[in-house]
Amino acid sequence: MKPKINKILKKNKAMFLAYDQGLEHGPTDFNDKNVNPEFVINIAKKGKFTGLILQKGIIEKYNEKIKKIKIPLIVKLNGKTNLFKGEPVSKQLCTVDEAIQLGASAVGYTLYPGSEYEREMFSEFENIEREAHKKGLPVIAWIYPRGKSIKGKKKKDLMAYATRTGLELGADIIKIEPSGKKEDLKWAVKAAGKARVVIAGGHKKNEKELLKEIKEAISVGCSGVAIGRNVWQSKNPLKVAEKIRRIVLG
Amino acid sequence: MKPKINKILKKNKAMFLAYDQGLEHGPTDFNDKNVNPEFVINIAKKGKFTGLILQKGIIEKYNEKIKKIKIPLIVKLNGKTNLFKGEPVSKQLCTVDEAIQLGASAVGYTLYPGSEYEREMFSEFENIEREAHKKGLPVIAWIYPRGKSIKGKKKKDLMAYATRTGLELGADIIKIEPSGKKEDLKWAVKAAGKARVVIAGGHKKNEKELLKEIKEAISVGCSGVAIGRNVWQSKNPLKVAEKIRRIVLG
Amino acid sequence: MKPKINKILKKNKAMFLAYDQGLEHGPTDFNDKNVNPEFVINIAKKGKFTGLILQKGIIEKYNEKIKKIKIPLIVKLNGKTNLFKGEPVSKQLCTVDEAIQLGASAVGYTLYPGSEYEREMFSEFENIEREAHKKGLPVIAWIYPRGKSIKGKKKKDLMAYATRTGLELGADIIKIEPSGKKEDLKWAVKAAGKARVVIAGGHKKNEKELLKEIKEAISVGCSGVAIGRNVWQSKNPLKVAEKIRRIVLG
Amino acid sequence: MKPKINKILKKNKAMFLAYDQGLEHGPTDFNDKNVNPEFVINIAKKGKFTGLILQKGIIEKYNEKIKKIKIPLIVKLNGKTNLFKGEPVSKQLCTVDEAIQLGASAVGYTLYPGSEYEREMFSEFENIEREAHKKGLPVIAWIYPRGKSIKGKKKKDLMAYATRTGLELGADIIKIEPSGKKEDLKWAVKAAGKARVVIAGGHKKNEKELLKEIKEAISVGCSGVAIGRNVWQSKNPLKVAEKIRRIVLG
Amino acid sequence: MKPKINKILKKNKAMFLAYDQGLEHGPTDFNDKNVNPEFVINIAKKGKFTGLILQKGIIEKYNEKIKKIKIPLIVKLNGKTNLFKGEPVSKQLCTVDEAIQLGASAVGYTLYPGSEYEREMFSEFENIEREAHKKGLPVIAWIYPRGKSIKGKKKKDLMAYATRTGLELGADIIKIEPSGKKEDLKWAVKAAGKARVVIAGGHKKNEKELLKEIKEAISVGCSGVAIGRNVWQSKNPLKVAEKIRRIVLG
Repeated sequence: MKPKINKILKKNKAMFLAYDQGLEHGPTDFNDKNVNPEFVINIAKKGKFTGLILQKGIIEKYNEKIKKIKIPLIVKLNGKTNLFKGEPVSKQLCTVDEAIQLGASAVGYTLYPGSEYEREMFSEFENIEREAHKKGLPVIAWIYPRGKSIKGKKKKDLMAYATRTGLELGADIIKIEPSGKKEDLKWAVKAAGKARVVIAGGHKKNEKELLKEIKEAISVGCSGVAIGRNVWQSKNPLKVAEKIRRIVLG
Repeated sequence: MKPKINKILKKNKAMFLAYDQGLEHGPTDFNDKNVNPEFVINIAKKGKFTGLILQKGIIEKYNEKIKKIKIPLIVKLNGKTNLFKGEPVSKQLCTVDEAIQLGASAVGYTLYPGSEYEREMFSEFENIEREAHKKGLPVIAWIYPRGKSIKGKKKKDLMAYATRTGLELGADIIKIEPSGKKEDLKWAVKAAGKARVVIAGGHKKNEKELLKEIKEAISVGCSGVAIGRNVWQSKNPLKVAEKIRRIVLG
Repeated sequence: MKPKINKILKKNKAMFLAYDQGLEHGPTDFNDKNVNPEFVINIAKKGKFTGLILQKGIIEKYNEKIKKIKIPLIVKLNGKTNLFKGEPVSKQLCTVDEAIQLGASAVGYTLYPGSEYEREMFSEFENIEREAHKKGLPVIAWIYPRGKSIKGKKKKDLMAYATRTGLELGADIIKIEPSGKKEDLKWAVKAAGKARVVIAGGHKKNEKELLKEIKEAISVGCSGVAIGRNVWQSKNPLKVAEKIRRIVLG
Repeated sequence: MKPKINKILKKNKAMFLAYDQGLEHGPTDFNDKNVNPEFVINIAKKGKFTGLILQKGIIEKYNEKIKKIKIPLIVKLNGKTNLFKGEPVSKQLCTVDEAIQLGASAVGYTLYPGSEYEREMFSEFENIEREAHKKGLPVIAWIYPRGKSIKGKKKKDLMAYATRTGLELGADIIKIEPSGKKEDLKWAVKAAGKARVVIAGGHKKNEKELLKEIKEAISVGCSGVAIGRNVWQSKNPLKVAEKIRRIVLG
Repeated sequence: MKPKINKILKKNKAMFLAYDQGLEHGPTDFNDKNVNPEFVINIAKKGKFTGLILQKGIIEKYNEKIKKIKIPLIVKLNGKTNLFKGEPVSKQLCTVDEAIQLGASAVGYTLYPGSEYEREMFSEFENIEREAHKKGLPVIAWIYPRGKSIKGKKKKDLMAYATRTGLELGADIIKIEPSGKKEDLKWAVKAAGKARVVIAGGHKKNEKELLKEIKEAISVGCSGVAIGRNVWQSKNPLKVAEKIRRIVLG
């Protein structure tokens, strides 16, 4: 079945709110407000995001609230803490069937090409993709080259390698960490071919810088953003969301 | 099916007696009395604990006695000795189905985030959780950050990371080792969101200190305790249990 | 189904003849006589052992002879050579179903707690145990703490840790290597709770010493012995067997 | 079922266009034109190749275009990035069934004999082969000796070892990297027995050199070429293709 | 079902022609003649061998020829190249069912006791054996102690350890590398009990030496030989075969 990608797009663009940082980075990313999933779920609703990215545990415990807001759910299927300092590897924590039962409109999975464990994640990703596509679910791949082996490589090359990997592996949308240079991103979008590219927000940045980056991303063909900290760490999350929406959705 | 968590709570609070130390630490924790499972099973009964934590081997061999005391059974599903000195990893030793046949009201599993083997335990935990929740069984996660990688990390951060990990992975109750500082625990409870937090008793302590710690835990929102050595190593286990009960169950 | 342990006991005591040394140590343990399985099978018969411990390969090839002697068969389900010098690990070589077809009255499995591979063996053991107990077959665990990590540990502690591990993992009988001190063994038997303990014979010893050790073992609550070299390396195996039987079976 | 190898041959010869370099080497192999799969798909058509080699992701996204050109599809079933610097290992990313659904006339798999992970790939390859042959699909093995262990080995020996490995493992066509010496290739073709050998084009070369190499390959019994960069990186891909065709297909 | 071992014996003796060296050592063992499987298949026929040992790939490609000669087929089920320089490990490349479909009268598998990967091969071997014996197929184990751990061990001990391992694991025939000393082989045959022992031919030797070795082997109870290079590398393979036959089959 063809992945129903329109469920998580508006005007053919993506504006995803990411909130899996509690597992990926730990609560050091949080303050007293945004440590509460309900706070962020509300932002997803009021900020009119086209998708909300969560781990299954939060979806289960905040199920009722999430059902009410009617924002398409993107269930992250793998995850890890940032405590282990060796080569990065993130394994499946939720099945495609579970994600569907939780109401998923799409599933996400992180790949670390360059890691000693690249092949474990590639294999797992392919199995997930097969299952998800069978059920019409789009697959979003977080693709972050990592590990000792990539030292000294150019960001531009890594970005384009990431998006191309996503295309060849069959991802529908590829999330990458942008270098900040428009030309780099342009090449990465080209390398992705018919697969879509969204940029990660990353660490909290100066707002002006962030918006400029998003504008440039859209101008070179990106499909949008998957953003978290720059929104829910902001003093005024809804204002930031509104500004992003104007850029992404026009 | 929604986990039937009330089976192991009283007044919405948890007071669990843990007795899996024979495998986890070896019989060095024991004396001539408490080396005998029947001694501890009696304490669970007379101390009116809301749950008794055991490995399957003890449940099988002391089955009749355990059935009589009618204390809800929490079957620990993984375990390891403390002999191996490398990165910690604890694997499944009992299935959810076996646990149910043994009369389990809940199941437990230990995770060591930060270990080189983090992903093996996360994967296994998720499979167990899926199975347990399908059958309405609550899942308790012992979450202890460990391994070479966590050296130098602050206890406060690790505690909150542990509880958040439990929330995102879908645990119903998260058992952590408290730092002893009220503020640290408060933040950890916040990070757990709607997942419940219970504190481990740990090594035998001064009774006054122990009770103060429990009081503080309850005051910042903990759901209770999972305690072992501080009870059954005590000269008067039932007296200690009574004091804990007054604090936890009010 | 409750394990039918009486099949391998007499007067509630165990006297097992072990003959898996060919795989575990190599034929250096053998001479021209005892290298022949038929020689040892005869000893099992004439020495009136309550069980004979063999690997499946020998059972298959000496099937007719074994059927005739009508000594209960204990099929060892895992094994390794002693050639590899790294951390010890012994994997399953025979299924429970195969063992049953070969006529097993019980199955055996060796665990090396403390080894880097502890978890692999614990997992495999549990699966075997589940299967065996379902069919009413008792499970005997050889539990030998090993590996770099245990250096410097006290024998007494290791012995008690071994038996406790067996109890918590659900073994019916635990075979350990005794330190030679009565007090150590007494504590190990206590730590085993309702699980039974048998002592390994180990290297060929002075007969007097051996018999003293067995006498002490019985006096502190051991269920018997699992012995090999001290019998079939002896000049007069049946005489030794007879002496052991008097001590163990009274 | 006998593999239907004629589907990917013309006049009993093979002329395959390879385009999996985006995953294997990254987009550094590409320019603004050939980064676009449609550009290369057109070359396959107009260059009259007897097969087009792609990863599943590209086939899915460029499905309609690919169906129109009616060039037999060879689906590459494993792949890896070149980022990780350790011993090479490439795992399955697509099943035989998926490949068939995507319209495959044959499947491909890369083996790295000499790598620490040789056995993982050999095992996986055999499973794929069994499945593919059951369905009448020919199997093409990329066989590239690699890893620390092969340092100092002679190219001639490695080439012949590669083709012989392919024969013994059951591959229908073996793709190797030629040394450039006719005698080496002749021996490799002999070692392959009844299995077919095609040579890889490798890095972009001087055209004259390339054509000479192909001519020699055909003269010593090779079945053809599997070529990529030397065609689609060329200023005039169709001209190069035409020259190759005259040599290979006569 | 009892393994039908008589299918690969004549007068209760074995004379196997081995031709899996192309995978195990590479084509450096070959010349222009014997690189061709048909050359060796003819030798099997005309030399009246009691079995021909091949990997599945060669059987598939030379199927018609092999059927015609009517020499019992022994399918080698695992294999590896000799390129990787680490601890040896050889994994399954062909299933028992496949072997049967290819016309196997027996199956073979190589074990390297002493290797870091000993347990992987032991496990796999046992599964193969179970399957093969179920179908009445005899199992031949190549048992070669290897790896860093065996340095300094005596050949005599290793030979006997190899055959004993084969007996305990359930092999029907055990192929070992003889030390050249009659006494060593005699002890190894004893250690094998009711399992049969055949000796490997190994590197091409002086013919006289070879024949003396075989004569001695038969005299101490060996069941025969599994020989390759000493036959098909010979200037007159059929003459050598004839001489061997007279010794082995009398």
